[in-house]
Amino acid sequence: MNQEYIISDPWSIIEEGFDAELVKSSESLFSIGNGAMGQRANFEEDYSGPTFQGSYIGGVYYPDKTRVGWWKNGYPEYFAKVLNAPNWIGIRVTINGEMLDLNHCEVTQFRRELNMKEGYYKRSFEATLQNGAKIAVESTRILHLEHDELGVINYTIKALQKDLEIEFCPYLDAGITNEDSNWDDQFWEILNVTAEEDRAFVHTRTMKTHFDVCTYMQSQLFVNGESLETMPKMETKEKNVRARYSVNIKEGASASLVKYAGYVVSLNHEPEALMDAARQVLDKGIALGYEALKTSQADAWERVWDMADIAIEGDVKAQQGIRFNIFQLNQTYSGKDARLNIGPKGFTGEKYGGSTYWDTEAYCIPFYMATKDQQVARNLLKYRFDQLDKAIENAEKLGFSNGAALYPMVTMNGEECHNEWEITFEEIHRNGAIAFAIFNYERYTGDTSYVPEMGLEVLIGIARFWHQRASFSTAKDQYVILGVTGPNEYENNVNNNWYTNYTAKWCIEYATKMLERVQNDHASDYERITAKTKLTSEEIEQWSKVASNMYFPFSDAHNVYLQQDGFLDKELVTVADLGKENRPINQKWSWDRILRSPYIKQADTLQGFYFFEDHFTKEELERHFDFYEPFTVHESSLSPCVHSIQAAMLGRMEQAYTFYLRTSRLDLDDYNKEVEEGLHITSMAGTWMSIVEGFGGMRVKDGMLHFSPQIPEQWTNYSFKINFRGSIVKVMIEREGTRFHLESGPAMDVYVNSERTTVN
Amino acid sequence: MNQEYIISDPWSIIEEGFDAELVKSSESLFSIGNGAMGQRANFEEDYSGPTFQGSYIGGVYYPDKTRVGWWKNGYPEYFAKVLNAPNWIGIRVTINGEMLDLNHCEVTQFRRELNMKEGYYKRSFEATLQNGAKIAVESTRILHLEHDELGVINYTIKALQKDLEIEFCPYLDAGITNEDSNWDDQFWEILNVTAEEDRAFVHTRTMKTHFDVCTYMQSQLFVNGESLETMPKMETKEKNVRARYSVNIKEGASASLVKYAGYVVSLNHEPEALMDAARQVLDKGIALGYEALKTSQADAWERVWDMADIAIEGDVKAQQGIRFNIFQLNQTYSGKDARLNIGPKGFTGEKYGGSTYWDTEAYCIPFYMATKDQQVARNLLKYRFDQLDKAIENAEKLGFSNGAALYPMVTMNGEECHNEWEITFEEIHRNGAIAFAIFNYERYTGDTSYVPEMGLEVLIGIARFWHQRASFSTAKDQYVILGVTGPNEYENNVNNNWYTNYTAKWCIEYATKMLERVQNDHASDYERITAKTKLTSEEIEQWSKVASNMYFPFSDAHNVYLQQDGFLDKELVTVADLGKENRPINQKWSWDRILRSPYIKQADTLQGFYFFEDHFTKEELERHFDFYEPFTVHESSLSPCVHSIQAAMLGRMEQAYTFYLRTSRLDLDDYNKEVEEGLHITSMAGTWMSIVEGFGGMRVKDGMLHFSPQIPEQWTNYSFKINFRGSIVKVMIEREGTRFHLESGPAMDVYVNSERTTVN
Repeated sequence: MNQEYIISDPWSIIEEGFDAELVKSSESLFSIGNGAMGQRANFEEDYSGPTFQGSYIGGVYYPDKTRVGWWKNGYPEYFAKVLNAPNWIGIRVTINGEMLDLNHCEVTQFRRELNMKEGYYKRSFEATLQNGAKIAVESTRILHLEHDELGVINYTIKALQKDLEIEFCPYLDAGITNEDSNWDDQFWEILNVTAEEDRAFVHTRTMKTHFDVCTYMQSQLFVNGESLETMPKMETKEKNVRARYSVNIKEGASASLVKYAGYVVSLNHEPEALMDAARQVLDKGIALGYEALKTSQADAWERVWDMADIAIEGDVKAQQGIRFNIFQLNQTYSGKDARLNIGPKGFTGEKYGGSTYWDTEAYCIPFYMATKDQQVARNLLKYRFDQLDKAIENAEKLGFSNGAALYPMVTMNGEECHNEWEITFEEIHRNGAIAFAIFNYERYTGDTSYVPEMGLEVLIGIARFWHQRASFSTAKDQYVILGVTGPNEYENNVNNNWYTNYTAKWCIEYATKMLERVQNDHASDYERITAKTKLTSEEIEQWSKVASNMYFPFSDAHNVYLQQDGFLDKELVTVADLGKENRPINQKWSWDRILRSPYIKQADTLQGFYFFEDHFTKEELERHFDFYEPFTVHESSLSPCVHSIQAAMLGRMEQAYTFYLRTSRLDLDDYNKEVEEGLHITSMAGTWMSIVEGFGGMRVKDGMLHFSPQIPEQWTNYSFKINFRGSIVKVMIEREGTRFHLESGPAMDVYVNSERTTVN
Repeated sequence: MNQEYIISDPWSIIEEGFDAELVKSSESLFSIGNGAMGQRANFEEDYSGPTFQGSYIGGVYYPDKTRVGWWKNGYPEYFAKVLNAPNWIGIRVTINGEMLDLNHCEVTQFRRELNMKEGYYKRSFEATLQNGAKIAVESTRILHLEHDELGVINYTIKALQKDLEIEFCPYLDAGITNEDSNWDDQFWEILNVTAEEDRAFVHTRTMKTHFDVCTYMQSQLFVNGESLETMPKMETKEKNVRARYSVNIKEGASASLVKYAGYVVSLNHEPEALMDAARQVLDKGIALGYEALKTSQADAWERVWDMADIAIEGDVKAQQGIRFNIFQLNQTYSGKDARLNIGPKGFTGEKYGGSTYWDTEAYCIPFYMATKDQQVARNLLKYRFDQLDKAIENAEKLGFSNGAALYPMVTMNGEECHNEWEITFEEIHRNGAIAFAIFNYERYTGDTSYVPEMGLEVLIGIARFWHQRASFSTAKDQYVILGVTGPNEYENNVNNNWYTNYTAKWCIEYATKMLERVQNDHASDYERITAKTKLTSEEIEQWSKVASNMYFPFSDAHNVYLQQDGFLDKELVTVADLGKENRPINQKWSWDRILRSPYIKQADTLQGFYFFEDHFTKEELERHFDFYEPFTVHESSLSPCVHSIQAAMLGRMEQAYTFYLRTSRLDLDDYNKEVEEGLHITSMAGTWMSIVEGFGGMRVKDGMLHFSPQIPEQWTNYSFKINFRGSIVKVMIEREGTRFHLESGPAMDVYVNSERTTVN
């Protein structure tokens, strides 16, 4: 563990005391979002200390020109980036003529709270300014889940000593930049900066992609809770606009500014109607008022928690960890909009630029399937279906043909926006996860309509890719897949990565099986799709040659599948025997040294055992776990969750618990020393899996739920709810046994440790 | 062949007719240099068409901040670059008030000639300006081999029709940039711009590296060859200085400006004495005058040619090709200064930034050994000895210890300045070439003093590196070398590249052998070196374990060593069966497709057979040549020469001749469609080898020269000279037989086709 400043609490993330060194970490940890937009926990008032400013809008991106040292053919020309959007939170505060800046004050009683239960972020502190003025500040911030174009800030200043002359200057500022800009390009064009009485609007447009965004605000001033109907002085400039509110208060009194602000975006409105849309949001927000909005926000979050919460008794750190994960996932993605997806940093940072990795399919979908309406998971699948043409184009750029599809490693709009050859071109296993998610969705939801409607075309494109990408080795008399990077990115350009070969074979077989089923059950869909894709039975036969004669590296000596050809030529020193001074190897070692070492960044062969658990015996899993885990450094956020699930499966609860803490508190405790850059959103879904699928042992077999529940010894009991095929079931796992409660929907049978029981 | 505009001529490179599309190519092909500096064939007068301006100074570089898309641990922070230096050639020409610019004139009779025999570059043309003025221009340019800080330009304008009012404005300009700058940094600081009567000086300093350079000029004006003693009007600005000379001439008369200009550099003078040094160069140059300088330049080149020329009868293209290669090598490197080396583009372009690759040891040293005093090759070896400490530091950065040395892939001052992980960290075979060059030098020159004086320490550092870099494979029960890139850069991060493993083993064995010899023959050196390096006999034993138990991938089926593990898993379609639409693959294919293909960029396994020819039988060579050459696309300039030599060795003269033409006319005929960027200087030494070692079959065995001469059927005969152990011998290879002429030094015995004959 690397930091311990977050105070344990079952429902809140709490920081106490002001430490400038922790500002950027806390800006990530206390981020708020509502699926449509998100905001790092930057201060409203000016701050001259180190800070990483970030406000992001779902689906609004900029294609930054690729920057590499040495160009390789096939690199995308542009790299889509999440965009730091105009600042809507800013409030310049002046006390007796001095600008409030915590970097130049004496600060006491500093406290942050991210109240996950009710969905607000509150910061409070007392400050003595250089001019001697003493104030207490409390600022509460909401990004409303339902009114998802609206943010509200209640910023209250109390005069602790003497009377105060206060000026609040809420502002909007489009003069912002991305920290990760490649060429210091301007990402935003500023079309219009306007003020109307006490309202202000900044109309901006992203360069190249032409997303129009109107950032707007209106504020209200209160003294001791009484509204002052003063009109501010509005000042518009080229890139920003501010409103000046002045007020004098007596010692002991307080002044509050409530700022209503946010974005309306051309994704949802006509560009020319944006200002009108903003006016409507303001009308509604102000009519409701701050208190009502705060209450309805709490109600909205209550509904989220009612379905998604995992309650753990007896272990507050574990409780806080899982709720933090669930909270952030819900802040990032609501599932309402099939154009959106789940970026690795959500709305909490810029790193990893694009929004969608294979993380969505491999880690996130199970969480959203079980805790939301199945339409949400279906939307995530549809996102890939909608981008199939682009995936086919992407494969064509790399020399494939005939409708072979290679989904991008990272994408915003279906185009590749990553540019390291060993990842972009070679980490092709992502195609496998996308096919697996279709299978997994159908297995879990029982919704057999997705495949004929959309999924089958995706499966055909993927099968075609694998068929073309595999090549025949005369030496082996089998099909091989050369030059790939598996999930373990600490190996590059290897031959016959077992995981990749295995998923390739599976993808072809699954596509073939689905083709047969659609042919039988949905003849008109079958006709439509085979006509569109020009698929023939001869081609399917060609596929099957590859799938049925795929090569898998195997070690007789160790009786395990090998991660790739040549793995056993490495010096097989386990992580336990590797001096601590070498860890983390991605910071301590040069890249070549990492590559030739046996160390594994994240589950690779074991990832395959996770996806295809029922293809292997428990003994096989155990053998592979015992062979690979000792070489695994878990330097990817996506690694501990899979290992936690498998350790639980093998009955190694202590190990499973350690992995659980590592995944659930990865950011809170900053294991990887990088939380400043943003949170690891996608791995948070893995945390959920490590409880539900790991400790709870939940599986779907033949359309039925199975559990094999265990409890870490640190816990008294735990419970969660799942939405399974129309039934909402609460699962309560206690030492005495597992209880179920049917909350809604039809009664159902479930298996607990292979014993059938009815939930009704 | 891709371009054919160069007119065949045995001694000159000639272009006739003006084609703006060819300007950048010709700027490369007609470059001039003198070992200390070099200049692309940019026009003296203004030119608004596409051009690539370049003037370079040996040893003067700038460490540009590395730019990569994704940082990898171990990358160097800076990337040293050859620097475009202040413009010394510029002469703005105004005719009747209109600035001369070939982009806006009617141009006829345009001709360029690079006279390689006498070492000058001449350009002539007739132009009709927009104002109707008609002129004939002849401009001759020299970079003097002996006065190597001095350049001279004679720029003559003849009035073809009507009287002319001419203004010449010779200038110096420090407002220049590098085309390949990473961050658009300024590379030069301008310290001083001064004019003194008709002289001008621009004192600049490179940022960071602090090389001081004084660029200077003085000009003289002539009408019809008579000197006009007019003083120009001098104009100094912030970054440049110009002199204005005005003259009126009658129709049929001519006016000439002779400009003396160049660089003096703090590598050779105290920075504060630079202007004085420039004055002295000017005093001397002007005292000698243009004609005398042109004559002494021709004399100096005569001396170079007397030793280095290869004369070919009956094939003017082949003749022109080899002379172009020899000329450029001598323009690039004179061997006078051990701080300098041979950059892949010499002084003809910026690409590949650094100056020194393994090219020097693998390709260039044989040429310089045979055509210059052995001190020149010794200086090239000493360059690496002088950088040994930096090579040890470089290895330490990558995790090696105990004095292990890894020479950089690319360097200026001993520090690595390359940043692609698969090359920088993995193309470690460069260490082998550096050791091989020591062996090769001693074998050729018989100079056994280099090893005890300097070479042994280099060999120890390199042996230590290989010992640490190899690792033990329990599975193979042998030592392996994982994660490398061999000479064939179309494979990255492979295991057990045969060439790398073979040279690693050889390096250790050679170092051990040299240690024994130095111990016996130079006891005090041995003591000094083992004390300094803390080398023990135990350590040497550890080395030998690696060398004696090294793994080499081998195919029983094909009876060949495999380029690397897994090579036979590829789809082994030969280049002949690869559609032309796929070539060159480095332009047509994405990087991953290249990597998983069997196609070889340049000799890899065969490079090992070239270095260690006497370790293998001719049958083995033939088998490997027949196996690998069919997969070789020769998309590296360094490939055809090795294949030409081996084809000749195998008696396949037609194939050898084809490879010869490809290497010797690579730039003249622009095979790789990139001559605009500069010439392929280092591969030019390979061209020399393909005649002397290929057709001539020259080898050194047991300290004696052996020849097995052959003549391509296109040739009548050919001859060359070599400097071998103090004897200068002319070798004349004719159909009737081979004749030798001892030009100087002791008589010696040589073998021709294994028959001994005495040269006296």
